[in-house]
Amino acid sequence: MAKQRKNPRPRAEPPKGFRDYFGNDVTDRADMLAAIARVYRLYGFDALESPSVETARALGSFLPDVDRPNAGIFAWRDEEDTGREDWLALRYDLTAPLARVYAQHRNTLPTPYRRYAMGPVWRNEKPGPGRYRQFYQCDADTVGAASIAADAEICMMLADALEAVGIARGDYVVRVGDRRVLNGVLEKAGLLDPENPAQFEHERGVVLRAIDKLDRLGVEGVRALLGEGRRDESGDFTPGAMLDMPQAERIMEFVRAPTRTGQTLDHLHSLVAGTEAGEHAVRELEQLAALLTARGYDDRIRIDPGIVRGLGYYTGPVFEAELTFETLDEAGRPRRFGAVAGGGRYDDLVKRFTGQTVPATGVSIGVDRLLAALREKGRIGAGATGPVVVTVMDRDRMAAYQAMAAELRAAGIRAEVCLSNPKSFGGQLKYADRRNAPVVIIEGEDEAARGVVQVKDMIEGARIARDASLEQWKSRPAQQEVARADLVAHVTGILAGNRQ
Amino acid sequence: MAKQRKNPRPRAEPPKGFRDYFGNDVTDRADMLAAIARVYRLYGFDALESPSVETARALGSFLPDVDRPNAGIFAWRDEEDTGREDWLALRYDLTAPLARVYAQHRNTLPTPYRRYAMGPVWRNEKPGPGRYRQFYQCDADTVGAASIAADAEICMMLADALEAVGIARGDYVVRVGDRRVLNGVLEKAGLLDPENPAQFEHERGVVLRAIDKLDRLGVEGVRALLGEGRRDESGDFTPGAMLDMPQAERIMEFVRAPTRTGQTLDHLHSLVAGTEAGEHAVRELEQLAALLTARGYDDRIRIDPGIVRGLGYYTGPVFEAELTFETLDEAGRPRRFGAVAGGGRYDDLVKRFTGQTVPATGVSIGVDRLLAALREKGRIGAGATGPVVVTVMDRDRMAAYQAMAAELRAAGIRAEVCLSNPKSFGGQLKYADRRNAPVVIIEGEDEAARGVVQVKDMIEGARIARDASLEQWKSRPAQQEVARADLVAHVTGILAGNRQ
Repeated sequence: MAKQRKNPRPRAEPPKGFRDYFGNDVTDRADMLAAIARVYRLYGFDALESPSVETARALGSFLPDVDRPNAGIFAWRDEEDTGREDWLALRYDLTAPLARVYAQHRNTLPTPYRRYAMGPVWRNEKPGPGRYRQFYQCDADTVGAASIAADAEICMMLADALEAVGIARGDYVVRVGDRRVLNGVLEKAGLLDPENPAQFEHERGVVLRAIDKLDRLGVEGVRALLGEGRRDESGDFTPGAMLDMPQAERIMEFVRAPTRTGQTLDHLHSLVAGTEAGEHAVRELEQLAALLTARGYDDRIRIDPGIVRGLGYYTGPVFEAELTFETLDEAGRPRRFGAVAGGGRYDDLVKRFTGQTVPATGVSIGVDRLLAALREKGRIGAGATGPVVVTVMDRDRMAAYQAMAAELRAAGIRAEVCLSNPKSFGGQLKYADRRNAPVVIIEGEDEAARGVVQVKDMIEGARIARDASLEQWKSRPAQQEVARADLVAHVTGILAGNRQ
Repeated sequence: MAKQRKNPRPRAEPPKGFRDYFGNDVTDRADMLAAIARVYRLYGFDALESPSVETARALGSFLPDVDRPNAGIFAWRDEEDTGREDWLALRYDLTAPLARVYAQHRNTLPTPYRRYAMGPVWRNEKPGPGRYRQFYQCDADTVGAASIAADAEICMMLADALEAVGIARGDYVVRVGDRRVLNGVLEKAGLLDPENPAQFEHERGVVLRAIDKLDRLGVEGVRALLGEGRRDESGDFTPGAMLDMPQAERIMEFVRAPTRTGQTLDHLHSLVAGTEAGEHAVRELEQLAALLTARGYDDRIRIDPGIVRGLGYYTGPVFEAELTFETLDEAGRPRRFGAVAGGGRYDDLVKRFTGQTVPATGVSIGVDRLLAALREKGRIGAGATGPVVVTVMDRDRMAAYQAMAAELRAAGIRAEVCLSNPKSFGGQLKYADRRNAPVVIIEGEDEAARGVVQVKDMIEGARIARDASLEQWKSRPAQQEVARADLVAHVTGILAGNRQ
C-alpha cells in the first residue's frame, strides 16, 4: 500500500477553470450527442476516438491566442520518451488529432475518410465566468475530398443535426464564407502577391481578426481596425492594419456584401475579378449555392463573405451556424445565442506530417452552448424526476424492500431503497424530497402483516410532506394503501398520470 | 494566426502507450456503456462527470505501483495557481475524484449519494502489449451509507449490469471478501495490534499483495511470499513477509476457506474468533449472504475470503467479478478472461478532505476487457456493415446523387455519396468495398434519361466486383435495374434480406 505523507488536508475543489456536471447535465448532453451521432452516422460518417493525449509536436500550435504559457495548451514532459517528441499535451481540439490519425493510417482508411468524433478538449487559458478549461466538442470531417460537394454536405448535415436535437428551422442559419475570396480582395488591394505570400502577412492577420469581430464591434469598429486602430470603452488600444482609405474601403465593401445569395455572388465576382484564386473561389461558392438550392437548403444555409473564422489553419470555405432567436439575460435584456458551430476547409493540416497536401473540410459543434440553448428553449430538462424511493421501516426486512425496488425496475421504473438512517422517518422523507422522488413506498410491521404497502404520491404532497409526522403523513389523501401484489401497477399508474 | 516554427515534420503517431479507436470499436463501447448506465439509473444512481484534471493533492497516491515517476500519474505544474495546490494531474481512477466531489458538495447532495461515472482514466505506467496509458472505467458508488445492504446492492447491480450487456448467467461469478476478516486473522497471528496498527504495517502489505496474486501464483506461490520470498521463472526474487510457519499456515487456511458460502462463513468465524473487528466483519458478511439468498443472487455472488484487492484504500468488503468461460488465445491454448470488475468499501477517502469518516462503497468495471469478452462471445460486432454508397457517374448531377442519399437516410438507412474521383469507376467500387457497403447505387447518363438506377447487392457480389469492368459488372445477377421512384423500397428489401 502507498504511504501517505502527513500533509495538511487537500482542498475539496477542482482546479481553477474546471467543474463538475451532475445528473441531468450529464445525461442531457449524452442524449444530445447521441442524436447528433445518429445524423452523422446516417451520412456515412464513422466514429473515431483518438487519445486525449498527443505529442505536443503532433498537435502543433494553431490556437488564435498565443500570448500564453505553452501556447494555450496543457503540456508536460514524458519520462517514457527521451527522443525529440518527448512533450505530451492534452488535445485542444479534435481537428489536429484527426490530421495525425489520417496521416498515420492513410493507406488503410477509405479515401475520402468521413469521420465524427465527440469528447472533451482542454485549453490552458485564463478561466473566467462561464469559461472553462475543459469543454466538449463534437466534430464531423471529410478528409481526402477536394470537391466543394464535400463542403456542401458538411453544411447540410450540420443543419440536419441542429434540427435533430431540437433547434427548429428558422431558429438558426448556417453562413458560408471563403478565405480565398478575401485573398482575392486583398490581392486587388495590393496586400497579397501570390508570388510572395509572406509579404504583408502581419497586415492580413490583423484584417482577418478584424473581420472576425464584425458581429461584436460593428462596421465602424472593423473599419478602425483596418486603419490606425481602435480604442475600446476601457481605454485599451488595439493597433490596426494601417491600410490606406481605398484599401480599407475595398475590404469594407467585401464585408458588407448583400445578403441575398445570388446578389452576393455577383458582388463578390466584381470584387475579385482578375485574381485567379479569387475567381476560382467564387465559382466554387456558386456550385455550393447551386447544390444547396437543388436540395432545398437555401432557406437556412447562405453565403456570407463576412464569415472568415479565427483559427489559423483554414484555407477555403468556412462555415458558422448561428442561433437566431433571442433570449433574455439575467438583467432581462434581449440576448442572442450566437454561434454554436463552426468549421471550414483546411487543406494543409495533414501536410504537416506527410509533406503532401490532403484536402479536408469539417465542422465542430460547441456542445455546451448548444445544450444551453436547448435548455433555454425548453427542449430538454423539463419535468425530470428522480427515482421511486422505498423507505426502510424495519431493518430486518431489507430483502423485502429490495424486492419491491427490483420489481419496479423490472417494469422499467427507477427505484431505490432508502439507505439513510432507518430510525428517522423524517430523515427518509427529506431524502426522498432531495432525490425529487415522484413516489415513496412505506411498509412497516403492520403493513407487512396485512400484505399491503403505503404508496405516497410526492408530486402532489411535496410541500407538506417535509414537516409531517408519520401519523399525519399516513392520513394525507395523496397517500394510498394498496395490496403488495398491486404495487407495480399502482406506481405505474401514478407515474403515467404525472407525465400527462 | 500562430506562426509555425520551421521544424522537421512531426511523427504521425500517438504517444507511446496511447491508441486510436475506429468505427465499431467506438460505437460498441458506447452501446455497452449505455446499457450499463440504464441499469445503474434503474437502481437510482445519478450520473456524475468530474473533470479529467484534478489537483494532484486532491487525487492523492493510492496506486499499488509507486516505484514510478509521479507515482504512476501524469502531472504538471499549473501556471494559473501559485498556491499550495499548484500541481495538476490526470485522474487515475474515478473513485478519488468522487471523494473530492462528495466532500465539496456534501451539504447539497443527498445522503447516501448514489452516483455512476464513466470515462477515460490515465496511468503514467510503462506501456506494454495490450497495456495502455489511457483506458475506460465505469463506476457506481454509494457514499454515506454504512449499511452492508449498500454493498449487497452494489454486487447485485453489478450482476444485473453484466447480464444487461450480454454476459449470460453462469458465465460469470461475483466474489466477495472482506479486508477486516483478514485483519482478524492477522490479529490472531500476532501481526496486528488494534491499539498500535502501525506495527507490522510492512508485513501486512506484503501479505495483502501475496493473497491478491493467488490466481496467478497458486497456493505455493502465495505460501512462498508469506515466508522467505519467491523466485519467478525469470530468476527475479520477490522478498516475502518472513512470517513463521504457524503464522503463514493460519493465513493459508484463511485463503483456502471452502467455497460453499455457508461453510465458508462458519470457517471464517473460527479463524477470527475472539477478535472484535474480525467477528463483526463475519457477522456483516452473514447479513450480506442472507440478502443475496433472499433476493435469489446466491447462485452468482458468493463469499470468497481470497478476494482482497490490490488498491490501498479499501477498508471492508471487497468484490471482484470474474468471467468463468474459457476462450482460446492466439496459440490455441484455453484461456480465462478473469476479472472484469472490482470494488469494495473505502470508508476513509472522504476523510482526507473533511477529517470525518464517511462510509462509501462501490464498483468499477474494466470497460475494455468486458468489451473484448463480449466480442469473443459473439455478442457484439457480428455482421456490421457500412453505409449504402451512391456512386458519382456525372459530376454535374451531384445534387441528384445527394437527393438519393437523403431519401435513403430519411428511411433510416446509412447512405453516402462517393466523393472519390468520379472518373474512375473502379476506384469508386474499391471505395465501396473498403467501406463495407452492403449496396451500391449507380446512375449514369443513360439511366438518368430513362428514370432508372442500377442497384448492386454487394454482400453477394463482393469478391468478383473488385476486378470487374463497368460492363461486366452491369450483367451480374446481384445487380438490378429499378425505377428511380422504387429506390428506397428496393434497398430496404435488400438490407432486410441481409439481416436474416
